[in-house]
Amino acid sequence: MADAMPIRVLAERSGATIATIKFYLREGLMPRGTVTSATHAVYGEAHVRRLALIRTLTTVGGLSLREVGSVLAAIDAGVATPVTALGAVGRRDGARDPVTDQARSEVDRFVDTDLGWRVQPDAPARDDLAHALLALRRSGREVGVEIFRPYARAAGWLVTEELEAPDDPMRAEGLEQGVVAMVVADAASSALRRMAREHRDG
Amino acid sequence: MADAMPIRVLAERSGATIATIKFYLREGLMPRGTVTSATHAVYGEAHVRRLALIRTLTTVGGLSLREVGSVLAAIDAGVATPVTALGAVGRRDGARDPVTDQARSEVDRFVDTDLGWRVQPDAPARDDLAHALLALRRSGREVGVEIFRPYARAAGWLVTEELEAPDDPMRAEGLEQGVVAMVVADAASSALRRMAREHRDG
Repeated sequence: MADAMPIRVLAERSGATIATIKFYLREGLMPRGTVTSATHAVYGEAHVRRLALIRTLTTVGGLSLREVGSVLAAIDAGVATPVTALGAVGRRDGARDPVTDQARSEVDRFVDTDLGWRVQPDAPARDDLAHALLALRRSGREVGVEIFRPYARAAGWLVTEELEAPDDPMRAEGLEQGVVAMVVADAASSALRRMAREHRDG
Repeated sequence: MADAMPIRVLAERSGATIATIKFYLREGLMPRGTVTSATHAVYGEAHVRRLALIRTLTTVGGLSLREVGSVLAAIDAGVATPVTALGAVGRRDGARDPVTDQARSEVDRFVDTDLGWRVQPDAPARDDLAHALLALRRSGREVGVEIFRPYARAAGWLVTEELEAPDDPMRAEGLEQGVVAMVVADAASSALRRMAREHRDG
């Protein structure tokens, strides 16, 4: 029976309004239900999970519906990893110019030589860090990539903590849970960093 | 002379196209230039800074233009803090129901009692953490707020590192730099956490 819900029940289960569900169906963010008559269709647990994922990506991940569509298409296409699925958002600054290339070189030296981390040469996080550095400079601060050393040290500790925790927050069964885990880890880290700073700044 | 740039020079300085600049002007994201004739206006350093801020908020912060508009309006209105300015985005899940209230109670107990942090009762980060917890549960994981302990410990260390660093990444002169610092800290933390995890997972 749980796989034969009318849209009203799907709305109750998911917390989404019927209008929102119909909008997502029109936009192709969810598969259509099983048609049971000229005017009715029924929905299943896969729709409940999909609505939960959309809600997480928009409200916790801050993605636009267009970005959500890209991530869901990547998931449905069976990409290899959560990083790849979220990389489909393509939100990053595509600018390629000498200033960007210089920042990226600084990041590569920092990650590969200074930190000594083994990270894929084409990991999107490298460009993300370069653009974060450029953003600081655009705001008028003359800083080098070393400004991010506190975050690098904390990231190293954090991963150790994750791996030693009784329940690794990044543990996930399947691609969808992996995507949720990444989005949640970013949101939780950000929220706790803000609160820790408020606590310390008094 | 730097305060009397034609739009072409403003585009060169900022890296934005003339079409983009005209769009931002129409959308009210930037003040108009100084009109010098029926068809020409000139722009100043404030416009260069504003374009840099918009670029950072969209590409590093992942904000939509509508969200950027809210943050800029808050900055222009002279809100008290970067947290308040970024809180204007209102991206968070506004749902208030027993399930959300329960998650929020767990977060409050974790932050106030377990961690013992002094954080404002209405800090938006509390709701953010509650929604992160709900997102994990919606994905099918039966977890408590303690799942976030690794992030809490890392956040505590991180703030110590920030405050002891030769150049505190969160140091900022004025509201705009403060907003940039917060957006950059989130992006840099996320990027470095992903790279640290990749390094450790091998």
